[in-house]
Amino acid sequence: MIYQRVALIGLGLIASSMAHAMRAGGLAGEIVGYAQSPETRAVAKELFCDRVTASAAEAVQGADLVVLAVPVGAMGAIAAEIGPHLKPGATVTDVGSVKQAVVDAVAPHLPEGVHFIPGHPMAGTEYSGPRSGFATLYQNRWWLLTPPEGCDPKALARLRSLIEGMGAKVDLLEVGHHDLVVAVVSHVPHAIAYTMVGVADHMRRVSQSEVIKYSAAGFRDFTRIAASDPTMWRDVFLTNKDAVLDILGRFAEELFVLQRAIRMGDGEHLHAYFTRTREIRRGIIEAGQDTAAPDFGRVAPAPKGG
Amino acid sequence: MIYQRVALIGLGLIASSMAHAMRAGGLAGEIVGYAQSPETRAVAKELFCDRVTASAAEAVQGADLVVLAVPVGAMGAIAAEIGPHLKPGATVTDVGSVKQAVVDAVAPHLPEGVHFIPGHPMAGTEYSGPRSGFATLYQNRWWLLTPPEGCDPKALARLRSLIEGMGAKVDLLEVGHHDLVVAVVSHVPHAIAYTMVGVADHMRRVSQSEVIKYSAAGFRDFTRIAASDPTMWRDVFLTNKDAVLDILGRFAEELFVLQRAIRMGDGEHLHAYFTRTREIRRGIIEAGQDTAAPDFGRVAPAPKGG
Repeated sequence: MIYQRVALIGLGLIASSMAHAMRAGGLAGEIVGYAQSPETRAVAKELFCDRVTASAAEAVQGADLVVLAVPVGAMGAIAAEIGPHLKPGATVTDVGSVKQAVVDAVAPHLPEGVHFIPGHPMAGTEYSGPRSGFATLYQNRWWLLTPPEGCDPKALARLRSLIEGMGAKVDLLEVGHHDLVVAVVSHVPHAIAYTMVGVADHMRRVSQSEVIKYSAAGFRDFTRIAASDPTMWRDVFLTNKDAVLDILGRFAEELFVLQRAIRMGDGEHLHAYFTRTREIRRGIIEAGQDTAAPDFGRVAPAPKGG
Repeated sequence: MIYQRVALIGLGLIASSMAHAMRAGGLAGEIVGYAQSPETRAVAKELFCDRVTASAAEAVQGADLVVLAVPVGAMGAIAAEIGPHLKPGATVTDVGSVKQAVVDAVAPHLPEGVHFIPGHPMAGTEYSGPRSGFATLYQNRWWLLTPPEGCDPKALARLRSLIEGMGAKVDLLEVGHHDLVVAVVSHVPHAIAYTMVGVADHMRRVSQSEVIKYSAAGFRDFTRIAASDPTMWRDVFLTNKDAVLDILGRFAEELFVLQRAIRMGDGEHLHAYFTRTREIRRGIIEAGQDTAAPDFGRVAPAPKGG
């Protein structure tokens, strides 16, 4: 057992998968949960929490580890609420996909003697909610931590043990660097997919029904990316604005170079460019982040019925 | 039986799948094949052709249907070679993913009395070559035809029967409209995916190894798209230049609007935009062009060993 009592604030896919994984590994003595919705709390009580509470403040009382698993835009208010109720020496972490904004929103509300270690589990499925969690979600996935300077080494080692106990691989990154990396690998690709689908949406000469009817690989993959949760993605773009604008700017430059090569009919440039981008794909498959198999290794269990 | 003799010029995934499908349905009396490489011809003879020939001119002699299944950039030279050897009354079709460029390259070389009906089967897998074909590739996929004005209705009906006999659904489109639709659903999404992977490739501040290491949904999907065959895609961009530049221009405008909303922190705009793009995804699943299942329905048989 690594923590006597763990409090989960927010009870969706990420938190419920943590609860299942902690339970499977015997990593936590008691798992206490809080979510805004009474229905969610009832499901959590039934499926994976020892106890649920009617407020976040109550949930964190006496907890050795507090996990903030709410949307990034809601972290500040939750931190303000729980700050006065945290146990001295407790560790607070979060699971937001943006880190600087979370640090800015949360850190000012935490008292001296509480260890704040922001985190980002890079795992998910196309499902959400308290019924969608499962114990193996984090198996062999990256879980990035961005500990502040002067972070207590013991608190960090303990959190790391918990995460590794759930099957994930831990890496430490500086906050700003984290936000830039995720802008490249996730945020800007989503912005671009949303944009391409938007272009198709209001084409006048090509009717929407034809675009849908003949939808081919390429566009179809974009619509899958662009079907993600609007609230979560709005928060991502508003809170990781600087890194996203930086990478979007580079993307626009690069696109204009490609566009010019097409306009000029520069076949040599195009062929060389397309050959280079292939290499990156090979690297990703070798790094074990994707598979060349036809189903792309993406088999997520469906949410538990209820 | 729909055609007594069919000549396949080019013997890759598309042509070999046609041969298997025609054989399975008893649609062709004799299937003759030609490809530049002697190895490819030997495999075709072994797996799906009744006869292979040492030249395209020889292959088309006496054929009722000639299928041009070579890269778009190679169609003109092949047409010039076979033109004088075509049987009067024969039908010539092709399988290129761009249509105006094929019409411009091929039509001038075909004699009077030969029916030219350009086509585009919207089907494929991640494999290529003569061993990659299978009889069910076209099952329930779209096969677009762009018959010229004044096209012989009997010749068109006959080709249509063959295609439907292989399990595909036929639609007729005007040439320019076809090229615009495929620019939206396939060509520009590929250009964008190549560009995003290119941005990641030469980021200085974010090392390539980190981008690969933490590659998440979004970027990972882009690298899959951007791993397509460089020669085929060079030809696509060079030959569908006008439509691609048109859609790329619209895309750039749209991207700048999104970029401004992010810069301004306009959460309402972002949320509304992301909600709208979700609808298109729903439409595609309802139209049967993709599936919501975790493996996305993409199970292609691996190439036959040899």
